Amino acid sequence: MSAMGEVMGVQRFRVRYNEADPMGITYYATYFDWFTLGRTELLRDAGLPYAELERQGLLLPVLEARCRYVSPTRYDDLIRLETALTACTRTRMSFRYRVVREGSPERLAVEGETHHAFIDSKYKPIDVMKRYPQVWERLHKLLMTS
Amino acid sequence: MSAMGEVMGVQRFRVRYNEADPMGITYYATYFDWFTLGRTELLRDAGLPYAELERQGLLLPVLEARCRYVSPTRYDDLIRLETALTACTRTRMSFRYRVVREGSPERLAVEGETHHAFIDSKYKPIDVMKRYPQVWERLHKLLMTS
Amino acid sequence: MSAMGEVMGVQRFRVRYNEADPMGITYYATYFDWFTLGRTELLRDAGLPYAELERQGLLLPVLEARCRYVSPTRYDDLIRLETALTACTRTRMSFRYRVVREGSPERLAVEGETHHAFIDSKYKPIDVMKRYPQVWERLHKLLMTS
Amino acid sequence: MSAMGEVMGVQRFRVRYNEADPMGITYYATYFDWFTLGRTELLRDAGLPYAELERQGLLLPVLEARCRYVSPTRYDDLIRLETALTACTRTRMSFRYRVVREGSPERLAVEGETHHAFIDSKYKPIDVMKRYPQVWERLHKLLMTS
Repeated sequence: MSAMGEVMGVQRFRVRYNEADPMGITYYATYFDWFTLGRTELLRDAGLPYAELERQGLLLPVLEARCRYVSPTRYDDLIRLETALTACTRTRMSFRYRVVREGSPERLAVEGETHHAFIDSKYKPIDVMKRYPQVWERLHKLLMTS
Repeated sequence: MSAMGEVMGVQRFRVRYNEADPMGITYYATYFDWFTLGRTELLRDAGLPYAELERQGLLLPVLEARCRYVSPTRYDDLIRLETALTACTRTRMSFRYRVVREGSPERLAVEGETHHAFIDSKYKPIDVMKRYPQVWERLHKLLMTS
Repeated sequence: MSAMGEVMGVQRFRVRYNEADPMGITYYATYFDWFTLGRTELLRDAGLPYAELERQGLLLPVLEARCRYVSPTRYDDLIRLETALTACTRTRMSFRYRVVREGSPERLAVEGETHHAFIDSKYKPIDVMKRYPQVWERLHKLLMTS
Repeated sequence: MSAMGEVMGVQRFRVRYNEADPMGITYYATYFDWFTLGRTELLRDAGLPYAELERQGLLLPVLEARCRYVSPTRYDDLIRLETALTACTRTRMSFRYRVVREGSPERLAVEGETHHAFIDSKYKPIDVMKRYPQVWERLHKLLMTS
């Protein structure tokens, strides 16, 4: 249970060399790679490994992505990434992310969100509750625990 | 002069192989790399090459970034990237981006925006009008032409 | 016709911001992205767009890649990338690459090579001469012009 | 102690979504990112965090990099990365890498190597034994344990 009131996935890792830019700080698009990592692991913990969903024909393309940059992180910094599912309807779902630089004191680095559609492998929208009832159930369990 | 009413930078290029993902479509964070390319070239055209600004101690870190995904693009698609400066105050500036897949018919792929601070190499905010009057003038010329 | 005695593809572009690292120089793996770009464009010029080859079921995975780094390039440097097909058998092909930083004087930045197999979409090796005679012919025309 | 007879750094992680390409397999340049990760962690374990070396003015640019691709890995595969220091003179050092896809049976995915120079922040070669005797000692301890 997080301060945000949602079940969260938490990942810890270091900023990789190739993720930092000539300013010496983490390149702004890198955070979106981490968001992908965060929702992948959150879904895995909920029994929904994304690679498996794709094999079953359920894709989750991004409709919108957003990131607000609060303080920079640097190569080799220890990062804590928190991911929460914040909404899930029959056709869409949303995640929220917080990236914290660990240490004393720890500092909030960025906050972000992504919004996704449920589509099939032909890029047609699908009703996840009808077509994938087990997925629907697990997503709502994830959403409800908050 | 663009449909949006702003002076634009326009770049044309193809989606690179490593910019597409296992779904076969352009990975969502790639668009932010393109946005970087778009504002770099827009600033260059305005006589403000970013590498030069950095050497003079003027950095433009991202405060917020956002992208709305309308239709997918794929490896090798011909892309037109339009970039416009949409706001510039003494401490901040904003850009807007449109990515279009060329062809007949052409299709809007994404729309995005980034907001930036003016800071020095010690990450202190600066008043660009006072500290870099020539930069200020050129940015406003860019903004005014619209 | 190049100094190397091969038909070459030549690409010109600038080092992107996200391709440079905290040392301020182009990150070493970036050159392999450029190699991909170089062989993509060389094949396109020979009437063999790679996206089309993939659709026809002909894949060209890398068997070996190598790069020798002679002098660094930096963000925004003007780059000339030269790509040549150096070998093509029924089951394999090889490319050579040179990356030059333009300017006066221009400087060789890196030299590299990649070696590829011909496989089908089930990752089985194929005899390109038998299965794709038109591709075979065009590749050999490309190889012969040297 | 590894089969190769060297002290190794071992990292375990999964293939990230953005590290795979439209063929569905890990993009070939991604392995070089992992090599960077491997030598970063090996050096850290030896008491030589690379970020600290850079702050002290000791840089390790790549002179040559090579990778041989044996079998593909895919998005979400569990990866084991083994890194060993294989040579260290006063002006150069070399690493060897093995990437294994874990599972039963596990499979060797790639083997690679990188060769580095010791230089200062002005890109001048330096004699690491003279200028950084502590670093020299730790590197040789790492090399000797084999």
